[in-house]
Amino acid sequence: MTQWSAERTAAPDMTIAFVAYPGITMLDLVGPLQVCAALAELVPGYRTVVLGERIEPMGTDTPLAVVPSHTFDEVPDPDVLLVPGGLVPTLAAMADEELLGRLRRAAAGASVVGSVCTGSLLLAAAGLLEGCRATTHWLFRDLLVPFGVTPVAERWVEDGRYLTAAGVAAGIDMALHLVGRVAGADVARWVQLMIEYDPQPPFGGIDWAAVDPAEHAPFRQQALVRALGDHPELLARLSG
Amino acid sequence: MTQWSAERTAAPDMTIAFVAYPGITMLDLVGPLQVCAALAELVPGYRTVVLGERIEPMGTDTPLAVVPSHTFDEVPDPDVLLVPGGLVPTLAAMADEELLGRLRRAAAGASVVGSVCTGSLLLAAAGLLEGCRATTHWLFRDLLVPFGVTPVAERWVEDGRYLTAAGVAAGIDMALHLVGRVAGADVARWVQLMIEYDPQPPFGGIDWAAVDPAEHAPFRQQALVRALGDHPELLARLSG
Repeated sequence: MTQWSAERTAAPDMTIAFVAYPGITMLDLVGPLQVCAALAELVPGYRTVVLGERIEPMGTDTPLAVVPSHTFDEVPDPDVLLVPGGLVPTLAAMADEELLGRLRRAAAGASVVGSVCTGSLLLAAAGLLEGCRATTHWLFRDLLVPFGVTPVAERWVEDGRYLTAAGVAAGIDMALHLVGRVAGADVARWVQLMIEYDPQPPFGGIDWAAVDPAEHAPFRQQALVRALGDHPELLARLSG
Repeated sequence: MTQWSAERTAAPDMTIAFVAYPGITMLDLVGPLQVCAALAELVPGYRTVVLGERIEPMGTDTPLAVVPSHTFDEVPDPDVLLVPGGLVPTLAAMADEELLGRLRRAAAGASVVGSVCTGSLLLAAAGLLEGCRATTHWLFRDLLVPFGVTPVAERWVEDGRYLTAAGVAAGIDMALHLVGRVAGADVARWVQLMIEYDPQPPFGGIDWAAVDPAEHAPFRQQALVRALGDHPELLARLSG
């Protein structure tokens, strides 16, 4: 493993902004954040920030609470914007016009707008993905359709400036791809080595042939009802 | 994918405690935390907690700050104790007698005591791993030797009640193995599906034949000096 070539260190200033909102799935945020923070540590010119409405603790889908590093207003124009997902809180956020507005404004000047897991449902609800190919968590993929988005069953999907990842852990793969794109494959491989991302799932990969989303439809519908009970129009639109 | 068998849901009450301390590597904590939080969500009888000295924000190796869910004193006797690692702050913590004392006390009654990445150096510094086989981040593996620990180059290592993982991302693999051990392979596969852990590293796995730790020894020594400048005896012992 050689280190990245010297000319790569003359990187442009680039701010990679992650979004935090209450109830997010922690690994959706932290997988790609760790990858991008390693990039920022290794190569001058990159910085990572975590944007929130306020700089104060917010709950997640784990017992851990997190505190963003900046408010949206403090970093109005990031180069890269990445939105994590979650379960009920993210589905509910599809109807949160204030958050969707913040995403639209933060995305306006970004060269890469991305998501992990159901984060793409927020980009879709914000109207950003209309006419695009995109992905999300396997259980929620066809919820992209009512927003005019073409769902794709891939680990990550690039369409123009949009870069969406599949569920939760897929954010790590997507972020390494992103690092390779902006800083080169050697840097991405170096980041991968530093975070020792050499996966050995103890039970092997997922056997997709044995996964039937229809079998889990009641679980998904329950989550939608909990999330969007106060928004019957959107709920009806997504309940198929 | 079938769901786990019904008899598995009659799990014993089990508290899985993660340790947080300032400067940790976020993914060391959040990878296995997400896996275990999914277990707790899916199967009654399991709970996850994050232990800290105080329930207040602490910095990490990313721009994100985190807030533990409980103090050490509130959960004095967890069933499983898992210690994340980090770079300079973790190396410095090898000399933090207060933290090491907390780890010894929390570990006293635990049936599984584990670590991710350089977290095993803290277990070793606390005297818990003496005579054991263990692993850690590839760059720091031989630092286990001065503590009487046999370093092993595996993704995770089990020796009696001790379960140590390699660097950063290895914590996800280790945690799935742990879930399989305590709740059965079907539950572990279900957790894996929910967090869509079906890795596709965009540049493939790590080419270990091309990694020479000696090449990176100066970087490691620099980190040790920064961490242990005030502890010359320990520094000398670890500087070989």
